[in-house]
Amino acid sequence: MTPNSLTIAEIAAAIGARAAGKTDLRVLRAAEPHTAGPEDLALAMDPKYAGGLEQGQARAAVIWDGADHRTLGLEAAIYISRPRLAMAGIARAFDPGPEIAPGIHPMSVIDPSAEIGEGAAIGPFVTIGAGVKIGPGARIASHVSIAEYAVIGADALLLQGVRICHRVTIGDRFIAHPGVVIGADGFSFVTPEKSGVEQIRDSLGERKDFREQTWTRIASLGGVEIGDDVEIGANSCVDRGSVRATRIGAGSKLDNMVHVGHNVQVGRDCLLCGQVGIAGSSTIGDRTVLGGQCGVSDNISVGADVIAGGASKIFTNVPAGRVILGSPAVKMETQIEINKSLRRLPRFMAKMEALHKSLTAKAPEGPEQA
Amino acid sequence: MTPNSLTIAEIAAAIGARAAGKTDLRVLRAAEPHTAGPEDLALAMDPKYAGGLEQGQARAAVIWDGADHRTLGLEAAIYISRPRLAMAGIARAFDPGPEIAPGIHPMSVIDPSAEIGEGAAIGPFVTIGAGVKIGPGARIASHVSIAEYAVIGADALLLQGVRICHRVTIGDRFIAHPGVVIGADGFSFVTPEKSGVEQIRDSLGERKDFREQTWTRIASLGGVEIGDDVEIGANSCVDRGSVRATRIGAGSKLDNMVHVGHNVQVGRDCLLCGQVGIAGSSTIGDRTVLGGQCGVSDNISVGADVIAGGASKIFTNVPAGRVILGSPAVKMETQIEINKSLRRLPRFMAKMEALHKSLTAKAPEGPEQA
Amino acid sequence: MTPNSLTIAEIAAAIGARAAGKTDLRVLRAAEPHTAGPEDLALAMDPKYAGGLEQGQARAAVIWDGADHRTLGLEAAIYISRPRLAMAGIARAFDPGPEIAPGIHPMSVIDPSAEIGEGAAIGPFVTIGAGVKIGPGARIASHVSIAEYAVIGADALLLQGVRICHRVTIGDRFIAHPGVVIGADGFSFVTPEKSGVEQIRDSLGERKDFREQTWTRIASLGGVEIGDDVEIGANSCVDRGSVRATRIGAGSKLDNMVHVGHNVQVGRDCLLCGQVGIAGSSTIGDRTVLGGQCGVSDNISVGADVIAGGASKIFTNVPAGRVILGSPAVKMETQIEINKSLRRLPRFMAKMEALHKSLTAKAPEGPEQA
Repeated sequence: MTPNSLTIAEIAAAIGARAAGKTDLRVLRAAEPHTAGPEDLALAMDPKYAGGLEQGQARAAVIWDGADHRTLGLEAAIYISRPRLAMAGIARAFDPGPEIAPGIHPMSVIDPSAEIGEGAAIGPFVTIGAGVKIGPGARIASHVSIAEYAVIGADALLLQGVRICHRVTIGDRFIAHPGVVIGADGFSFVTPEKSGVEQIRDSLGERKDFREQTWTRIASLGGVEIGDDVEIGANSCVDRGSVRATRIGAGSKLDNMVHVGHNVQVGRDCLLCGQVGIAGSSTIGDRTVLGGQCGVSDNISVGADVIAGGASKIFTNVPAGRVILGSPAVKMETQIEINKSLRRLPRFMAKMEALHKSLTAKAPEGPEQA
Repeated sequence: MTPNSLTIAEIAAAIGARAAGKTDLRVLRAAEPHTAGPEDLALAMDPKYAGGLEQGQARAAVIWDGADHRTLGLEAAIYISRPRLAMAGIARAFDPGPEIAPGIHPMSVIDPSAEIGEGAAIGPFVTIGAGVKIGPGARIASHVSIAEYAVIGADALLLQGVRICHRVTIGDRFIAHPGVVIGADGFSFVTPEKSGVEQIRDSLGERKDFREQTWTRIASLGGVEIGDDVEIGANSCVDRGSVRATRIGAGSKLDNMVHVGHNVQVGRDCLLCGQVGIAGSSTIGDRTVLGGQCGVSDNISVGADVIAGGASKIFTNVPAGRVILGSPAVKMETQIEINKSLRRLPRFMAKMEALHKSLTAKAPEGPEQA
Repeated sequence: MTPNSLTIAEIAAAIGARAAGKTDLRVLRAAEPHTAGPEDLALAMDPKYAGGLEQGQARAAVIWDGADHRTLGLEAAIYISRPRLAMAGIARAFDPGPEIAPGIHPMSVIDPSAEIGEGAAIGPFVTIGAGVKIGPGARIASHVSIAEYAVIGADALLLQGVRICHRVTIGDRFIAHPGVVIGADGFSFVTPEKSGVEQIRDSLGERKDFREQTWTRIASLGGVEIGDDVEIGANSCVDRGSVRATRIGAGSKLDNMVHVGHNVQVGRDCLLCGQVGIAGSSTIGDRTVLGGQCGVSDNISVGADVIAGGASKIFTNVPAGRVILGSPAVKMETQIEINKSLRRLPRFMAKMEALHKSLTAKAPEGPEQA
């Protein structure tokens, strides 16, 4: 396979940046400065990469504002100021993306009542159920299943083995990575008598008695509603709601193996990093960021603009704008103080016990102890 | 699609509750009180929903014992006392469930030696291996694989892309959500020489030397045995045993992305919430509930009727009936005390350090320091 | 199905151990001593199993060096010294493995430009894309997808529903359990303006203002490179790199539901246990073992020969050879001391507060309080 080449001028135009030097030079791919060959575009967006450029063989690079490509030994350059934003444009320009052949593969099973928009590319072993509606420009890789009455907007990209369950509704430009499951039933059970979990909720930890109990399932009648511009990572799961829908707001991004329980409401433009879990009926405000392996208890409200450090476990409501950390999660600065204290706690306790001993040993048994 | 309508009398009969008013009124679906329309059955099982009923347009509702549907402006009502239990019945009545066409889809690959019970519905792109036995009433959605010599009881519901590996045995009424994997090999390796992990187990943390080590795999000869009435959430995994089988007791329910390692024995009627992980060879007693993201070390015994709060990490045996929390998990009341102490620890330490300083500064250097 | 029988002599030869007694006795499978029947090979590798042997009906067993099979009532025995290593050989001898019929199943979709080595067994509903290269001896179960230009070495075993994304490179003897996803896009986004996360990184927790922000995706141009002899557990995910490749070194083993983020470099012969998560751009040294549910922050370096106890959360660089535990992870011995201190912290604080009170109460209100 021969990747397409791009000129320096084309890439600069695509990312809205200034090009200089031999801007009709063609490059095949992006590369790190020290490994870049003569056909690569070196990514040297910070002065710390100057050495790497010398080491590598790039003739062209993306470099930081204020640099001079000639003194860096380059024939051509693109000057940028915000490296990660530039990277987004460069990656978009070079990304070949997954190949999904246009048209509908003959080894797929598509219900005649399904409506599939123009320009769809549907791979082999795909199933699309009755009443499904998919907008124009869909790219659906192999082994995807879309169950009855699901609705998906324009320009969807569903990678291999994605599962869209029945009656799920999804906006435009949806991206789902392999193994994503949207709309499985929620985890909702009830015992005919009060269960142990209900007992301790009522009594703060004391349990009276144990008896046989079995779990009766509560089927999930609600759906899942996902806004525009949502992306969901590999093997993540978003469960359907009990009565109302589980919702993921527009612009939110979920990483791999994220679990979103039934009835959860995730706001707009959130980031939920790898292996985050949100238990049933909790709410996450707009623009909130949960670091990897964070957990949110059920029926909790996490406000907008919250940032939770990795592995934070959130048991109580969190006000908007708060930065939190730890298990149980508290303000990040509080947790950092607690962590510092913990590291010296064993020595501190030994020292204070010694003080206590010396003081109580010194004091004669007086009337105040009586 | 037009959902089936049900009369108030039919729903009340289905859940064994009392109906009143115009009980032949038909409703199409359940809804929250404030959004319910005239064709919906409002779920207003608690006095706090009275306002919602006023706001919405429901003509019929499920209401709490002691209410009067006429004063709530309803034409018909079902009176209930235990809301979540009533909800289970109502949800069952309305749940359309996933649609899987009766019969065996021609684009499936079923070994002629497989025995499939009466009334099976098997979707497209399903594979069923040699010697497999599946009881009557099975509903098997698209993309499921059932490998050689697996045995599954009556009325199974296997959703899209479920993987049942070879020689797995499962009881009646099994429900597996999309992406479940039952019977992958356990994570079991050995080094020809003692490994670092074995060293620290023997010596409590001190390591003598480091050497090259590679891992030899120990294939899993045991199977997986799952009882009746078990339900497993999307993308969860239950590994096969080393020699004996990994077991999940009857009536137990697993949420999404739960990991059950090789040789684990889970009792009856347990709840394992989202992203729980149980390492190899551990035992979980009957009716035990592990909150979301709990972890259980390998070779641990967790007793019956234990309740572990979310994100508890269990490193040691837990006696039956205990309510635990934290990492490492301790009694819940102990952990709550610890958490309170931790929040004021930095200030406390500063205060006590000041006391210590003032006392030791005040004291003249006497013979006791010598 | 009739499993193959093996003689005691054959098994002993396969694991390089000494056999004694009636070594031409045939056994059908391995079993635990107390449940072993007359056709089973009892696994009694430690004196503690002597009682189990009496209870069971085994005629042959694997027993510990120094035992005497005649006094244990056995007709034949294999004597071993390192039980887990012996178990690896015995399991290999008996493991039937998954059945995948030789040849290429007609209901698969294989691009004519793909190169598939000799002796391949490819199951139904498999897709193999353009330019893919697979070495000899591959066993590929049903529902697997291998996207364009992926390269896989000799003797691969890909179980049901494995997803190998485009341009991924994998060495020899690769084993992937059901639902594994290799090469999904990384979780990499940027806001046009500085995001909240960047703000708190710069200012250690204080946030100035909140504004609307949306996330622009950074496509992943890098691939995934996996060495020889790697095994990956069910539903685990390894994301592709941004520019350079994400790498898993030769001999490393990943358990179920492990998340390896973009750009991560995992060394040789590592063990990553169930539900471990490694955030983007972090490095894990050779032979490092991360217990179940461990987490590693982004851009962290964990050295070689590190052992992290279960549920450790690693926020900072870890030097080679260190044994760590806790959240945040610290030296294991330090964490054990901290945990001990924590359990008595509430009582300790009460005691010290009382001391403080008694000391400050004794002091008359003097000028120093003024």
